[in-house]
This record gives sequence, structure tokens and C-alpha cells, in this order.
Amino acid sequence: MLDELAQQLPAEVLITNPDTMEAYRRDRANDPNAGMPQVVVRATEVEHVQTAMKFAAKHNIPVVPRGAGSGLSGGSTAVDGCIVICVDKMKDIEIDPVTRTAVVQPGAINNEVKTAAAEHGLWYPPDPASFQFCSIGGNIATNAGGLCCVKYGVTTDYVLGLDVVLPDGRLVKLGGPRLKDVAGLSLTKLFVGSEGTLGIIVSITLRLIPAQRQPTTLVATFPTLEGTMNAVLEITRNMRPSMLEFMDDVCINAVEDQMKMGLDRSVKAMLVVQSDEPAQHATEEIQMVEEICNRNGASECYYTADPDEGEMFAAARRAAIPAVEMTGTILLEDVGVPIPRLGDLVVGIEEISKNRDVTVAVMAHAGDGNTHPLVVFDPTDKDQEERAHIAYGEIMDLAMRLGGTITGEHGVGKLKQPWLTNYLGDDVLDLNHRIKKAIDPQGIMNPGSCFVMG
Amino acid sequence: MLDELAQQLPAEVLITNPDTMEAYRRDRANDPNAGMPQVVVRATEVEHVQTAMKFAAKHNIPVVPRGAGSGLSGGSTAVDGCIVICVDKMKDIEIDPVTRTAVVQPGAINNEVKTAAAEHGLWYPPDPASFQFCSIGGNIATNAGGLCCVKYGVTTDYVLGLDVVLPDGRLVKLGGPRLKDVAGLSLTKLFVGSEGTLGIIVSITLRLIPAQRQPTTLVATFPTLEGTMNAVLEITRNMRPSMLEFMDDVCINAVEDQMKMGLDRSVKAMLVVQSDEPAQHATEEIQMVEEICNRNGASECYYTADPDEGEMFAAARRAAIPAVEMTGTILLEDVGVPIPRLGDLVVGIEEISKNRDVTVAVMAHAGDGNTHPLVVFDPTDKDQEERAHIAYGEIMDLAMRLGGTITGEHGVGKLKQPWLTNYLGDDVLDLNHRIKKAIDPQGIMNPGSCFVMG
Repeated sequence: MLDELAQQLPAEVLITNPDTMEAYRRDRANDPNAGMPQVVVRATEVEHVQTAMKFAAKHNIPVVPRGAGSGLSGGSTAVDGCIVICVDKMKDIEIDPVTRTAVVQPGAINNEVKTAAAEHGLWYPPDPASFQFCSIGGNIATNAGGLCCVKYGVTTDYVLGLDVVLPDGRLVKLGGPRLKDVAGLSLTKLFVGSEGTLGIIVSITLRLIPAQRQPTTLVATFPTLEGTMNAVLEITRNMRPSMLEFMDDVCINAVEDQMKMGLDRSVKAMLVVQSDEPAQHATEEIQMVEEICNRNGASECYYTADPDEGEMFAAARRAAIPAVEMTGTILLEDVGVPIPRLGDLVVGIEEISKNRDVTVAVMAHAGDGNTHPLVVFDPTDKDQEERAHIAYGEIMDLAMRLGGTITGEHGVGKLKQPWLTNYLGDDVLDLNHRIKKAIDPQGIMNPGSCFVMG
Repeated sequence: MLDELAQQLPAEVLITNPDTMEAYRRDRANDPNAGMPQVVVRATEVEHVQTAMKFAAKHNIPVVPRGAGSGLSGGSTAVDGCIVICVDKMKDIEIDPVTRTAVVQPGAINNEVKTAAAEHGLWYPPDPASFQFCSIGGNIATNAGGLCCVKYGVTTDYVLGLDVVLPDGRLVKLGGPRLKDVAGLSLTKLFVGSEGTLGIIVSITLRLIPAQRQPTTLVATFPTLEGTMNAVLEITRNMRPSMLEFMDDVCINAVEDQMKMGLDRSVKAMLVVQSDEPAQHATEEIQMVEEICNRNGASECYYTADPDEGEMFAAARRAAIPAVEMTGTILLEDVGVPIPRLGDLVVGIEEISKNRDVTVAVMAHAGDGNTHPLVVFDPTDKDQEERAHIAYGEIMDLAMRLGGTITGEHGVGKLKQPWLTNYLGDDVLDLNHRIKKAIDPQGIMNPGSCFVMG
């Protein structure tokens, strides 16, 4: 059967060697149960994607779309016998400074888009912590977030148009370089965050905005969680920071182990806050933040208008996941709650950590209530591993009880699929299924990811 | 059959008197072919909407959802024998200043939401020119735009969650007060802009942002269209104004006839530009705009930091549609193009106006390429009326040739439905139909509006 595909595609885009395919079976969720594809199509042209999709539809073969493979929820985990369609080589970026839009292929790295925009004095805001190695196609597929979302919104807010290869191989163009377009259903937005379950995105039209001003950065440490959380609420009530990040003591110590920045290891939590308002206003805002932090019992506040020094603190926050990863195997959470419940969430996670006797490091995009608890375990300790998995589920249950979501920005993928029914409820899940069936009646797109069809 | 409905709903929510129903047959599109409903359900509770929908589904009766009736594309035009479900009495507004969200019922007027938010120092940005009499539910249904969208985005960018009554009467809750939530397909965003074809929105969770600063306003007049358009491009290339509005000479004269503001009747076009950056920066930006306008041949530039005086110019722009309406019957267009093609669009419209010998007044949200050409005709002159309708279609064809859309912010409704196929193409229309059938298999929701099912 693969001979048929080989006749339709150039040899260099087809990978069938099992050793080479190994690199295309998993994303950063590192699913131990990942399947083995029968072929990887490493497309360099839209037509390759269409050809592979038509072949898959004809033979009813599951398709797993893949970008840079940096996904954290297993959305690109291969299933046995599937075709992996990988778009990591499709990396064209065109910036139009007049319409302030970018037309990019899905394999372009987020930071490559940012850099290309910056050459025209423009900015593509969404900034997942992985921005240096995640692809823009994956960002669209998961509706990725990041650190600046608290002020600048999430990926979908910047997507004006998409070219999508549908499960039957047809190419459709949705939206385009127009800030306003309401003709027909909002299909562009439907495909954003669809996690490869509805089609494969092959081109993206992004809205760009003028370059961000150099931010002023404040770092504050706190002896109590309660003080930290009260400060967060008071900050978001009074201003719109361009960054408002939280790290608990476990994260702080892990980062300090790796980076030796001189962080105070004795504190309970740390906030990193930025304002990117024009200079004098940024200073005023950050001084207000300083007052708020001090009023809520901060043990230390420090702020700087020096962009390099400020970036050092932001980098410390971004380094938290890899730093915690050095201390054991991790289960990465992504639960989000309405901001006023953030304190309850963090305290509740602490309890789960104690009850299950596993370390849970918590970092959060505090300004938008999105947290990344990291459940750490020793993979050689099976009992601990089991307790870690229980804690992982309990954190999602807790977030739901607090009016929150099981995933704020990483996506459901295969990792969180078992919790989706509980989160959405039967009626909303039914709506998901109806739309899935309408667009992918054969059910070949990324099966088992996001939701499982009956 | 209506007896059955009367048993299930309080008498005061049911309107069956033809004279009273007359007020529920049309929106501002004033469709002369509007049908006659068999009943109007003026719901005051979510349960009323559910009951009416279940009744309609059981008996396969078409349902036309209605808010304030201010729609401009006939999305609320009744069809014969339908049930009009009107939500204009459902007006609750709750502001949560801590999560910076509002939970509002669909009948609340846009300005009532703005006012309620302002009481907490917060702001709901989307500002259709009709903000004083359009309902928020209709804003969601059409993904409404407005004047501040050039900087602050459109309605969908502020919608975090929706409660929707589905065509079978079930109530689903989509999203919620969380800035980040990617669990499952982006259904919230799918319902935004769905023009009542997929269900009835009964509650909306809106994102709010800190109050807007008082803007600095510049008005510039130009002797040529070319100079005006070059100025627009140079402005959007260099800054992000919070308003960038265009009026041509026909609009200027119509507004001056009504408002006697002392506008220069001899100029070809006028721009109204605002910056809402912090004070000193707003002045710097507006001075840059002034330089740009002068460099592009402006005949006069005037700017003011006085908010009342600035609002007067914004009000003049918002008054343009009613002012032009005083000069004859109008066909209101809503075409949008990528900004660099705006000049071609305006020049092309001028040609169509000459060729068809009808007056076309052009105003535009210039900063986002969205224009509102108003084709004016004398309804007693049948030949002119016919030429006006031809011009109306030609303007849409022109916009499509320029890479634009047939509707930027008003919606397709019944008025533009004939052009949708041509705009979307067969494949994208097919996707629309598939989703429509998946969610409304009986096809009872707002039939004939937006798209016509086969």
C-alpha cells in the first residue's frame, strides 16, 4: 500500500525506517505507550500534505499531525499504523508591514516569527515559555498561551486566517489579512485549538502589533502564599501588567540550583511583574506594584528598567520547568482557575502534595489564573510514580471544583483526554463530537487525542 | 398548536396580536419582504427560551432570534409562520472587578455594559456606532466591530464564555471567566458571529480591561482621496491609533447639514484620529499624525486633548449614517479590504457611483480597512432604486476582487446571503453547511439568514 504513496510523493519526504521514525513518535509528553507509525511524511509543500491526506482518507488510515514536537499533552503522540504528517520543514515567513500581518507556514518557530516581525518594528505577542523551539502551527493547534497573555491575549486573538487541509485532502482558505470579516461561521477560530482533530493547518495569517516597549521588571519575594496571592489580586485589580508570573519555593530552589542567580531560597513564593507602558508610566505602575507587594508582606522587592536585567528574571521563570525536570521525572499540569480562586488552588495543591507524599512544584501565569503544577517523581519508585499520577488527577479535579479548566494553554492531547468528559459534561462533549463527525466523518484525524469518539 | 405553547409559558411573554407583532418583523435592514411570525416569545427567563425552542423543534417551526432589532443585514427579519424569540427584556449585568469579567444577558444594551463596567473603573471596548441602542446579544451574534477595533479588536476578542440554548432546547455552558481555556474545540468562538443560525445566546461572559485613558483627537481634511489614503497607510504603519475614521465629501456635507459643526464642505475627505496613550505620549503620537497628514497634503489639521471636544468629532463620524439617511433611502454596505487596497476600493466605489448615476457616501473604519458605503436612492424613482441595487452588488464584487470581504462587522443576514457563496467558495460553504447540519439538523434556526441550506 505504501508503494502507492511512494509513487505520489518525492522519496525525500517519506520516512519508513523504524529507527528514523522513532524521533516522530512522541512529543514532550513522552508517552510511554506511543504507537509506531507506518510512515512519516515530512512535507515541504502543501501538495504533499494534501496527497498524504487523500491517501489516508482513501485507505482509512489514522493521521497524526506534527510540528516541532514540543507539545506537552501528547497531541502528537503517534498511534500504531498511522501516518505522521510532519510540517516542521514548512517554515516560510512573509511579513507585510503595511497590513501589519504575517503569512507563515506551520513549521516556523514562534521565535522566528517574532524575529521576522521585529525586523519591521512589529511584534507577534504570544510567547509560550517554549517560544524558542515550538512551532507556530502547534501554537495554533493548541491555542497556545504564554507569559504576555495577561495583557495581550492568547494565540487565537492574533489569527486572522488559516489555510487548512481537510481530512478528505481538500485545501480551504479561511479568513485572511482583514481585521474584520464576519462572512459565514467563524471557522478560522474553530480550527484554532482543534489539536489536529479537524484538519492540518498549512498556512497562517497572523495579526501583528507595533513593537513592545522595553518593560520595567519587578521581582518580589514573600514569606507566605496568602500574601503573594493577595498581592496578585490587588495588582490585577489596579493595572494590566504585561507579565505577572508566580513561582513557589520548590521552583525557586530548582532554578537557583541550576542558575545560581542568588535567589532567596528561604522564601515561600516569588512574583515577576512587568509593565511595558511608556517609560514614566511604567515606573509609576511598577512603583504601585511595589507598594502593593510591601503592603502584602513582601520580604524583598526589586525593580529595574534595564531590559537585560529584567529579561534575566523572566528567563528564570521560563527556566523553572527544565530546572524542576532535573530533580526527577515530571507530570506537567496546566490547570487554570478564575483569578480569585488561585490562592485556593495553590493551597489545595500543597495539600494534595502532602497527602500523596510527592513533590509538586507550582509556577503560574498568575495574572490569568493559569498554573503549571509539576508533579515530580522518581521513575524507579513505582509506588511513588503511582501516587504522582493520582495527585495529577486530583489537581484537575480540584481545579474543576474551583470553577477552573483542566487545560489553560497546553491542550488536552492524549494525556488529559480521560478528564475531558468530566470537564465539559455530556452535552458540550456531544457538540464537540457532532462537529468532529461533520468535518472528519471517517474519524481519521488524530484519533484518541482531545476526545475519543464513540 | 399555539395553545400548547400558551400552556407552557406565562401569558405576558407571548405576543400573537398581528399589530403588536409588526414591531418584531424587521430590523434596521427594513426588509420589505419580511414574513409574519405566528408568535413572538418575549422571554424574560432562560427557561422561556428553552421552552419555546423545544416547542419549535417538536413542531419543526422556524425560529428567528431577536435582540434589540438594530441589525443592519436583516439577520432578525422574520419569516412567515416563524416563532420570533426576542431576548430584549433579559438585561441583567453583573460585573466582577476581581476577575475583570462581566456576565450579561443578551438583551443588555452595549452602552449599559460599558456603563456598568465603568462604575468599577473597567471598560468593555467594542463600540459599534449603534452602541447606545444595540444589544450585546446581537453584538455577539454578529461579532460586531466598531470604532476602537483598530486598536482593541472586535467582539470575539472579549468573549470568554457563552450560555447557549441549542436548537433542541438544551442549555449548554461554553467557556467561562477564565482568560485561558483550551479544553475541547473552540465552541465559544464558533457561536460568536453565528447570526442565530446555531442557537440562542442567553448569557455572555465578557473580558473587561482597565478604563480607557481620555484620548487626544485629531481631525484632518484633505483635498484629494489619494492624499487621505496615503496618510492612513502611513499612520497605521507607524502607530496604533485608538480610532482612525474616514468620511468622504458626501458624508461631510450630510453631517454638516444636520449638525452645523462648521465642517469644511469643500474638502474631499476627512480623517478623525485618536490616541489614548498616556498623556505626553498621546500628544507625541498625535503630533506625528499631524506631520503625516500635512506631508500628504492635508488642507487643515486640528487636534485637541479636551475629551468633550474630541468626542464631538467622534460623534460627527457616528452621526454620518443617520445624516445620510436624511437624504434618501439607503443601502448600507459593510465591505472590508486589506488596508493597502482601501484607496482602490474608495476610488472604485466612486466609479460605480458615476456609472450607475447614484449617490454613494463612503465612511470607513479606515484603520482596519472596513468601509460603510451608503448607496442613496429615491424610493419613488424605481429606475434609480434598481441602479442602486446594482451598485450595491458591484461594490461587493469590487471588494472581493481587492481581496476583501462582503461584510466586516454587520453580518450576512438575509441581505447579503446571495453573495456569500461567491465569497466563500463551494468548499468553505460546504464546511459551514456541515457544521450547521451537525448542530441544527432540522434547519429551524434563522432559516434563510447567512446561508441557505440545500
